[in-house]
Parts: sequence; structure tokens; C-alpha cells
Amino acid sequence: MFTEIKAAIEKADNIIILPHKSADADCLGSAFALKLILKKLGKKALVMLEEKEPFPHTCGILNGVEEQVSLNADLVIAVDCGDLERLGERIGVFKSCPETVNIDHHPTNTMFAKYNFVDTNAAATGEIIFHLAEFMNVALDRDIAENLYAAIVSDTGRFSYSNTTENTHIIAAKLHGYKINHTEINEFLFERNSLNKLMLVKAALNSLQVYKEGKIAAVEVTREQLLKLGATEEDASGLISYPRSLETALISVCFRESTVSDTVKVSLRSNIYDVAQIAKQFGGGGHIRASGCSIAGNLKDAKEKLLDALFKVIE
Amino acid sequence: MFTEIKAAIEKADNIIILPHKSADADCLGSAFALKLILKKLGKKALVMLEEKEPFPHTCGILNGVEEQVSLNADLVIAVDCGDLERLGERIGVFKSCPETVNIDHHPTNTMFAKYNFVDTNAAATGEIIFHLAEFMNVALDRDIAENLYAAIVSDTGRFSYSNTTENTHIIAAKLHGYKINHTEINEFLFERNSLNKLMLVKAALNSLQVYKEGKIAAVEVTREQLLKLGATEEDASGLISYPRSLETALISVCFRESTVSDTVKVSLRSNIYDVAQIAKQFGGGGHIRASGCSIAGNLKDAKEKLLDALFKVIE
Repeated sequence: MFTEIKAAIEKADNIIILPHKSADADCLGSAFALKLILKKLGKKALVMLEEKEPFPHTCGILNGVEEQVSLNADLVIAVDCGDLERLGERIGVFKSCPETVNIDHHPTNTMFAKYNFVDTNAAATGEIIFHLAEFMNVALDRDIAENLYAAIVSDTGRFSYSNTTENTHIIAAKLHGYKINHTEINEFLFERNSLNKLMLVKAALNSLQVYKEGKIAAVEVTREQLLKLGATEEDASGLISYPRSLETALISVCFRESTVSDTVKVSLRSNIYDVAQIAKQFGGGGHIRASGCSIAGNLKDAKEKLLDALFKVIE
Repeated sequence: MFTEIKAAIEKADNIIILPHKSADADCLGSAFALKLILKKLGKKALVMLEEKEPFPHTCGILNGVEEQVSLNADLVIAVDCGDLERLGERIGVFKSCPETVNIDHHPTNTMFAKYNFVDTNAAATGEIIFHLAEFMNVALDRDIAENLYAAIVSDTGRFSYSNTTENTHIIAAKLHGYKINHTEINEFLFERNSLNKLMLVKAALNSLQVYKEGKIAAVEVTREQLLKLGATEEDASGLISYPRSLETALISVCFRESTVSDTVKVSLRSNIYDVAQIAKQFGGGGHIRASGCSIAGNLKDAKEKLLDALFKVIE
């Protein structure tokens, strides 16, 4: 299928790359790497984001991120995008283009383009873009390599997730050959905390409570703490990783008071129990191993209700 | 130098491997990988630990860890060990052996053995053991590959530290070829906390202080906290990652009172400054970006002395 995609790219002059909405680092790293690759082939290319202002945070570590200009495309390439719905408001751009390509690694991909390349064995879409560049005989450079590295390192959780393969490390080795600044990328993506973020972690750890001999671990943060520390949604949502890391915990919970309404947001994680079912009892949802819900009322009452539900699951 | 080490190994029948005291995962993974490699060569080999009871926590994810038996060695191999002092009480075992080998990657290595192989470009001693096995034509297996992976992934912080190279990923790719359980190793090494460990992190975060507009970030834990929480050396040594994650910090420090003597252990990290030089001022050492030392006296005085030295570096 690379053959047909290569031909479509060679034929085109103006190419629009479409990341999925709420694009993550794999998606954005892949998209901007592809843009730089296409430019090396003498094409006009741009990445059209759903969220234009401000650019997603990840763009801060990527190369080739520029102001959005418009382009009358003769080819669009959707990147890391499982279905048309994930293109959001840009679906019209995709549909109005005669030539369409879909490059992805999600098993749920709906093969929505004229030319589809979906490799579910690829740990990241970044791996596919790497192979596409090789196939098209485009020599990488440091900028492209850094974008691809950011894509791959983020979707593999620093090469730790089960999707990581021998091939992932072979590609990472080749990317290192371009003298990529891997420490900076890793720090940007995984290790940069503001003082307020660390203070939020501190608040969460100070609230850590365990129940049922440590089978349940819970942290909580109050509205006052969140406002005082100017916590973002991202900051707050990461707190679940602390109770989750407790070696005895079968279910972990993070309670945080909403800063805008009289509700408590609850995140649930488990490696054993179906926490989507628990979240559903409170009008929430999510995945079996990771779910969430909002409970009206104050923190004390919300905790009591949710813990009661957990105590029914864990004897 | 591999040639002479290979000859020494071939000549020997009974080999004792000596990790440094308070051995970390690179040291232990390398040591137990080497043991299994030597066994494949038909040698009697054992890893003699300084801390026998209980085994260091890391041993829980390594292969080939067994009860300590004694061995009348005709060869000793120090692994990941910068100098003789780091052998602790096992220095006699080393000195009484006619043939001695020193395999390490620390730049401060004192070349204390008859045969020394010190590769400061190796991200981990595990990389050197991998190459030694190749050089000696020993085919790896899954057990050995998992030990080497644990060594490398820990000393490179999941391939994120500046020591990580193209070669590190090439080795990681080859280790993946043995179907290693990399997710389990990563979870064990990076994502499992005891309740006491989380309480220790809490104590450290509660002590977080910043100096020089946040360019220096420091945490401290007291003897009382360490004893109350039954903290291991490993637990305590990981605390540096919290001040290190502060986005403004150029140098990060962790102070912890020794539980056995009237000294304060200091860990230093920087991405910009040579903290080995700072550690050296207090009789310590290590890498340019990661070093440590012990300062006699109480916590207050040790902090004052060390911070004074830092203030001279950071205006």
C-alpha cells in the first residue's frame, strides 16, 4: 500500500495533513514529521489542527510548527486517526478532496480513505511515518527525527508499554543517529512539573487513604487547593497515578472537587475489576480498567457514596 | 581488554561476582546476567551481595537469584563498582583472590583490579556485559536478556537520560528478540510503590524547598522518617526525582540522614552543571550530571555546607 501512497504523494503538489482532534504527541509528532518529509520532496504541505488557538502543549517540543495558512489541497492525509468523526470540523476538508490517504495504527480504524495504510503492529503512527520516509527514499534530518522520536516515545510510555517491539527500538536507534535531543524531549513530555504541580501532588499524597487492607487506595484534592495552585485539568487528572502505584491496591480512586460546580469528579483505575460498571452507577463511564464519573454534592458525601459502592465489590 | 578478561574467565573454574554495596538495578541486573553467562560457559559462579538478608528489592524481578553459597574463587569480578571502598566488607574476598577483574562504566573508576574494563560511554554496565557475552560467543537467553534489560532500562531511566545512545537502543532491540517481559520489568522497577514508599515521597514533598528563584530544588528526609517507614536505600535514593522534576531547577538535591551513622547522604542532579565536582568537594563522586557524597554531622549543618557550595556555582 506504501506504493500507492507514494504515487499519490508524488502526483500531488499541495498536501494537507490532518491529525485527529485533541491530538496527542504521537499524532502531532507524526503529522509534523510528515510535513517536513513532504517539504523535502518539494511539496507544499501543512498540518491543519482542530485546535488552533492555542496550539496543543506538545507542539512546544516539535519542529516545523508554524502559523496555519490555507492551502488548496489536491491531497489530504489523515494521521493517527481511527475514523472520520475524529477529524471534527475538518471533515469537510477531507471529503472535498479527490485524493485521500489514511495512515494509522489503531485496530478500530474504519478504512475511510481512498488509500489506507493501517499497521496495528506499529507501536506508534510515528513508526509508520519512519518507514514511509525510508520507502520514499527521503533522508531524515534531526528535526524530522526528533518529531518521530516524540511520537514514538509518548505512545510507548518510554518504550515500556506492551506495544513496544524490537522494531520500535531499531527505529529509536536510527533516530538517535541524527543526534536527537532525546533528554529534552523526554523531560518535556514526562518530567516537567511546575512548583504548583508538585504542591498538588503533595496535597494528594497528604490525603492518601487506604481501605480493605490496602486493596483500595484513594486521594482527594479540594476546590480550594485546585484554585490556589491554579491546577489545570491535566495536572489534576494525573494524580490518580499515585494511589494506582500502591502495590497492594486493586482499585484506586482520585476525588477532586469541581472548581466550577457543586460536584466531585471521580477517577477510577483497576487492573482487576471492571471500574466502568462502578462509574456507570453514578452516571459516568469509560473503560473497564479506567473510568470516571461526577457526583453531585460535597466531597464528604461523594466519597462516602463511592466508597460504599467499592466496598460492595471488594469484600 | 575484553581479550584478557575472556582469557581470565576461561582459565577460571570458580568465579565470584561482586556488585557494589547498596547495589542498584544496573549493578544487580549486570551481576546476575554475568552469573548466568558464566554458567553457560560451564563455570561455577555466584553473586556475593553485601546485603544478604533480605535480598535487595530489585532481585524480585531478576532471574538466577539464589541462596548465597560459598565458593573458593580463583577469579573475582567486580561489577559496576567505581572503587574498592564500594565493595564494603567484601574487600577481603577481592584482595585475597589472585585474579581480579573490574567491569564498570563510571568515569571515576580507580582501575583497582588486575584486568580493568571501564567504558564510560556505556549507558549502563549492562551494555558492557551484553558486549562481553557477544565477544565470548555466549548465546543469550530470555533470563539473561531480562536481567540485562532491567540493568539498562534502570540506568537510562527508560532510555531517557543523556547516557542513552544509538547503541543502547540497538542492544534493547536485540534483547526484545528474546521475548523479554519488558512491561513487567518496567512496572516492577518504576511503577510499584509500597505504602511506606509513598509515605516517604510525601515526607520528601513536604520538605521541598527552592532557592535562587527555583534554580535549586531540595528535599530532605530524616533518620526518624527513614526508620519509621523502614525505608530501603533504594526507596530513599529515588526521592531525587521529585526536586529534579521541577521545571525551573538547574540543580536538584536530596539530603537524607544516615540511619547508622552521624552523617548525611547527599544526592545531586543537574542537566547543566558538573555536580561530580561539587560532590568531590565533600569526598564524594559520580557522574557529571548525577553525583553523591556523605557529609559528617547533622542535617542542618550538612545542608548549610552543601547549599553554600551550590550558591557559589549558581549566582
